[in-house]
Amino acid sequence: MNIAVLGYGTVGRGVVEIIEGSVPSLSVTRILDLPDRLTEPRMTANYDEIVDDPSIDAVVECMGGIEPAHTFIMRALKAGKHVVTSNKAVVAAHFDEFTSTAREMGVGLLIEATTGGGIPWIASLEKMRRIDEVSSFSGIMNGTTNYIIDQMSKNGLEFDDVLRTAQELGYAEADPSADIDGFDVKNKTIISAGIAFGVACTHDLPVSGIRNLTKEDMEFFRGRGRSVKLLGRGVQQDGRYAVAVEPVAVAARSLEANVPDNFNLVTADGATIGELKFYGQGAGSLPTGNAIVQDLIDCAEGRRPDYDFSAGLAYDPSLLSGDYVIRAAGWAPAGSTEVAEGYHLVNGVTAVEARALLDEALEVDPKAFLAALPEED
Amino acid sequence: MNIAVLGYGTVGRGVVEIIEGSVPSLSVTRILDLPDRLTEPRMTANYDEIVDDPSIDAVVECMGGIEPAHTFIMRALKAGKHVVTSNKAVVAAHFDEFTSTAREMGVGLLIEATTGGGIPWIASLEKMRRIDEVSSFSGIMNGTTNYIIDQMSKNGLEFDDVLRTAQELGYAEADPSADIDGFDVKNKTIISAGIAFGVACTHDLPVSGIRNLTKEDMEFFRGRGRSVKLLGRGVQQDGRYAVAVEPVAVAARSLEANVPDNFNLVTADGATIGELKFYGQGAGSLPTGNAIVQDLIDCAEGRRPDYDFSAGLAYDPSLLSGDYVIRAAGWAPAGSTEVAEGYHLVNGVTAVEARALLDEALEVDPKAFLAALPEED
Repeated sequence: MNIAVLGYGTVGRGVVEIIEGSVPSLSVTRILDLPDRLTEPRMTANYDEIVDDPSIDAVVECMGGIEPAHTFIMRALKAGKHVVTSNKAVVAAHFDEFTSTAREMGVGLLIEATTGGGIPWIASLEKMRRIDEVSSFSGIMNGTTNYIIDQMSKNGLEFDDVLRTAQELGYAEADPSADIDGFDVKNKTIISAGIAFGVACTHDLPVSGIRNLTKEDMEFFRGRGRSVKLLGRGVQQDGRYAVAVEPVAVAARSLEANVPDNFNLVTADGATIGELKFYGQGAGSLPTGNAIVQDLIDCAEGRRPDYDFSAGLAYDPSLLSGDYVIRAAGWAPAGSTEVAEGYHLVNGVTAVEARALLDEALEVDPKAFLAALPEED
Repeated sequence: MNIAVLGYGTVGRGVVEIIEGSVPSLSVTRILDLPDRLTEPRMTANYDEIVDDPSIDAVVECMGGIEPAHTFIMRALKAGKHVVTSNKAVVAAHFDEFTSTAREMGVGLLIEATTGGGIPWIASLEKMRRIDEVSSFSGIMNGTTNYIIDQMSKNGLEFDDVLRTAQELGYAEADPSADIDGFDVKNKTIISAGIAFGVACTHDLPVSGIRNLTKEDMEFFRGRGRSVKLLGRGVQQDGRYAVAVEPVAVAARSLEANVPDNFNLVTADGATIGELKFYGQGAGSLPTGNAIVQDLIDCAEGRRPDYDFSAGLAYDPSLLSGDYVIRAAGWAPAGSTEVAEGYHLVNGVTAVEARALLDEALEVDPKAFLAALPEED
């Protein structure tokens, strides 16, 4: 199978390295990059040369961002080429359009690398659904924030100090907002809900991150046998679903609490299979490249995932509710209990209501922090 | 696809329940059981009626044990029927024979349910190998012993008391030897090595269990930041491989240490994918039934795993070596250090040498216990 790789950054280089090192049945014949970065004859800055080339069977999109990725993916699908992508932003934004175009054209759209890096998460959800309804999923889907939390926890450091080190090591972007404010996990949650529940998932879900997490917060939760992790979550029940992205104070003895470094851990539940968890590298050149190459091998063997968003599930935020702790100075939610100085326990609210309370708190204390407090097993 | 189920116990009933509840493309047309347990017209005690019936496409073997399972599987394969089995003992004993017969006959031999219950472990190893050499695997592969250890750890109980409760709950057999002495994990390790390394794995590997694990042992390791788990392990390097089954004192903060109840957690390492871990129910009617039905769906879609044991890897026990702790009263290994009363640290021995030391210890103290002490990360 002849492949064109769009974008020759970390992931694109991983894809080429893996194919040329290990997979002789695949051939990278073209690479799209910026005009000043063309170092080999197969490289081009002109996408027309790729999309109009009938010898190219599949396009690997790892440029990131919405445009021109969206346009390039649509043109490739309409030209009858398979598309494999690691771009969570563009898939979350245009999942339904991509899926229906791939179906019309009879080509593959494969997205394993968008979520959980090298973890076979998307393929596992698809496989579960052959037998079970997926009743819920949740997980650590962002390695940067897990690294920050892990370093804060293990070395008693402050958020800003760890973030600076992570930026120096290349684990965090110069603008870390997509990671630490939860928007990266939001995209992965939308994609996971699409696969797990068969729904064109709402983009209007509650999202909060860990930007305001402090050393003192870590100690507050540790003293209560818990550890904070940033989770993407989804549940479905009786034709309804809910999704959220928020810090969750998980039990210190849970697997989630013990995920180190920049690893990911994602969980799905089904009626007959019970709970399945998948752990691995959520990012990086070779793990993400591996996920893309696995998709390419599947595609060459004829796999054409046909994501179906016609189930018509209704978005019902009341499905995700529970207790929350909000830390804010000079402000307390109505009806809350102060469980330690500045820490307020709120019982039985939805993730949407909790996010609204956090917004109120942030107006008074821009450093306010919120975490869900699930029932202990 | 028409299916005959051989053995209508826990797993067989799970298979039938899942197919009839969720998978209309499959049909269980015959069930083999004992003559005094035939309660429906499709049930028979005569295997000839199944193997000679050309309408049956696939046989699901979940009788357990070596015979007649071995004979029934061989007859099914030679009759051109696909075989899906959960029987780890018979696959470990006859893996090469089954594989070569399935290849000759052009039928599927699918064994996901033999190892890790509902966890997609076998399929994941196969998938990894499309790109990576699997350099090592290890895991908690036996739910009964994990349940015993977890209960001992959480409630400070003695081994015998937990075992008795486990037997009452149906988590442990009346004769618990296969679980607590490591022979169940031995079979799963042989099968995992076959898939992961492409080798007809030796049956002459070091195996020790947790029969002699005490509350005091748990406290000894806990005081050193570790927790004992029974692991099956394998490594390969430069055309050689080694395998072992033994208690391992893992770091208390590792995911392995925090696996609760009767769950399994298995890990594989590959060069580009890094470390992948899979967690789920390692046994039980519906999880194991789910693994079998997934194999049946794959088989109906044309999947024919072609396990290849021709790599010619040499068995080299020196690949698995490290430090061990042996607890024995009135005996100490030569060159060991007594790190607490009766606990002897032995440095840099192979798993085979460690097992030989345990044999020596058991002659003096029938309650002696051994655990590997891997380097902390």
